[in-house]
Amino acid sequence: MLAAKYVDEMTTGVPLPPSPSYFNMVECGSEISGEPEKREVRAYKNPTDLVRMRSTVSFYICYLLCLCLGLACLVCVCLWNSRWRGGFAWDGSSLQFNWHPVLMVTGLVVLYGSGAVLYRVPLTWGQNKLPWKLLHATLMLLALVLAIIGLCAVFDFHNAKHIANLYSLHSWIGIAATALFAIQWVVGIAGFLLPCSPTSLRKLLKPVHVWMGGSILILSIAACISGINEKLFFVLTENQTYAKLPTEALLGNSLGVLIIAFGLVVLKIVSNPEWQRPDSRPEDIDYTPVPREEN
Amino acid sequence: MLAAKYVDEMTTGVPLPPSPSYFNMVECGSEISGEPEKREVRAYKNPTDLVRMRSTVSFYICYLLCLCLGLACLVCVCLWNSRWRGGFAWDGSSLQFNWHPVLMVTGLVVLYGSGAVLYRVPLTWGQNKLPWKLLHATLMLLALVLAIIGLCAVFDFHNAKHIANLYSLHSWIGIAATALFAIQWVVGIAGFLLPCSPTSLRKLLKPVHVWMGGSILILSIAACISGINEKLFFVLTENQTYAKLPTEALLGNSLGVLIIAFGLVVLKIVSNPEWQRPDSRPEDIDYTPVPREEN
Repeated sequence: MLAAKYVDEMTTGVPLPPSPSYFNMVECGSEISGEPEKREVRAYKNPTDLVRMRSTVSFYICYLLCLCLGLACLVCVCLWNSRWRGGFAWDGSSLQFNWHPVLMVTGLVVLYGSGAVLYRVPLTWGQNKLPWKLLHATLMLLALVLAIIGLCAVFDFHNAKHIANLYSLHSWIGIAATALFAIQWVVGIAGFLLPCSPTSLRKLLKPVHVWMGGSILILSIAACISGINEKLFFVLTENQTYAKLPTEALLGNSLGVLIIAFGLVVLKIVSNPEWQRPDSRPEDIDYTPVPREEN
Repeated sequence: MLAAKYVDEMTTGVPLPPSPSYFNMVECGSEISGEPEKREVRAYKNPTDLVRMRSTVSFYICYLLCLCLGLACLVCVCLWNSRWRGGFAWDGSSLQFNWHPVLMVTGLVVLYGSGAVLYRVPLTWGQNKLPWKLLHATLMLLALVLAIIGLCAVFDFHNAKHIANLYSLHSWIGIAATALFAIQWVVGIAGFLLPCSPTSLRKLLKPVHVWMGGSILILSIAACISGINEKLFFVLTENQTYAKLPTEALLGNSLGVLIIAFGLVVLKIVSNPEWQRPDSRPEDIDYTPVPREEN
């Protein structure tokens, strides 16, 4: 597999000859090629391609699960805040606070996770990487903007009610996740989208970008879980209402479980080397029609 | 690299010829060998070995950071509960509850994380894997036992105070982490330590075991963060004490940050393919003096 070969070369510092599995992948039409149909015909002649097909099918099952979990998170967080918390406003009241969970879950978890797995979709592999890079950057920018508006909502609400900002562990982790996300986005644009960014810098940045991406998602999950837990204790406090697990408590807890499940599926997709987009490096330049699109 | 080659073979389902980087690793003495000194002499003749040396040094820096963060977590959680929360007892009082954070952080985070990175220590690679497997299983068992005692502490405390169990999101995630950990340990013993377990089962189980291991750590982190946040809101509630960030709040928040940092470093070590122990598979049998020790 090309991803594994890439790791090899990153480790040893020397370009290796393409491995047999790499050629298999080219043959089954998942690598960029001028003659996809011809290669497709050759593809299903050996059992290795069946293994690859199975891997693609299992990817799409995982991807579908990821999309369903993301959608379920959005439905739960909107339902909770509109139906049980009274809806939305931007007037410094608790209705303004309600934007906070909705926008943080939508931005820092669902959109962020969906943007992270974008390159793993095999359908995009045979195409020019630039439009997918731009879509990845746009999704991440949208996620970042929603998260920042979500933070504004809670800061405004706190200021209107004379509540201090940024003292709880939840807020420390949430603000760290958003700040690291903003840095990651700026460094990502500078490192991977600016044409003047050198190849050596991209190679150096890529593993850091991937690891930092996973770390930000874990920080976001921890912030969401602690936030939902804290909110449920705040609003279901009288006569230990939370302990009686009313519908709102069940909905909030389920939202937390769904967020964790979504995050784990995203991390599974991102970390599985079988599902990595084959990178087009200088030594593989003859396999790609877009030589500038490297990382 | 052997780890990358292993991924290739898992993907394609067919054994590949050893890659040049794999031979480089054997030559630099990190693979099992009957003539380690001779290979060591050959090792430093080419720049690839310098890259490997650099990788080993960066591993040890990461590993040292991991140990320091783990130690800092232990110091913080013990200090918080002994100095600020009144110490420990097993009498149904809040002093019994204090065992809960200490044992959960020690078991589910620090010991668990330390056990997870054990195989990545290059010093252990040239040796028979069985003692390291046993140490891994023992560390994990100790971690599991501490986590279970930590759960007993909070259940006893709740029952003595007539507080319901397992209603909060924190408790749902914490109990899920412990239950999955117990299942993971039993399946791990059956799959990787019982001599009757077939090689095909081990190959099938290994990626699931690794992914499940990472997922349990993420669940544990989320449970710890939400638990610390909840506890600080409970005990620093009068006159919004938490918002004034007294020393206890700073200590609790710092504990949370340290747990996150420790978890991220552990996940970094576990997920870096450069730092994976070279597995001795049947097709590599001639490279290893311990043919039975596979996974």
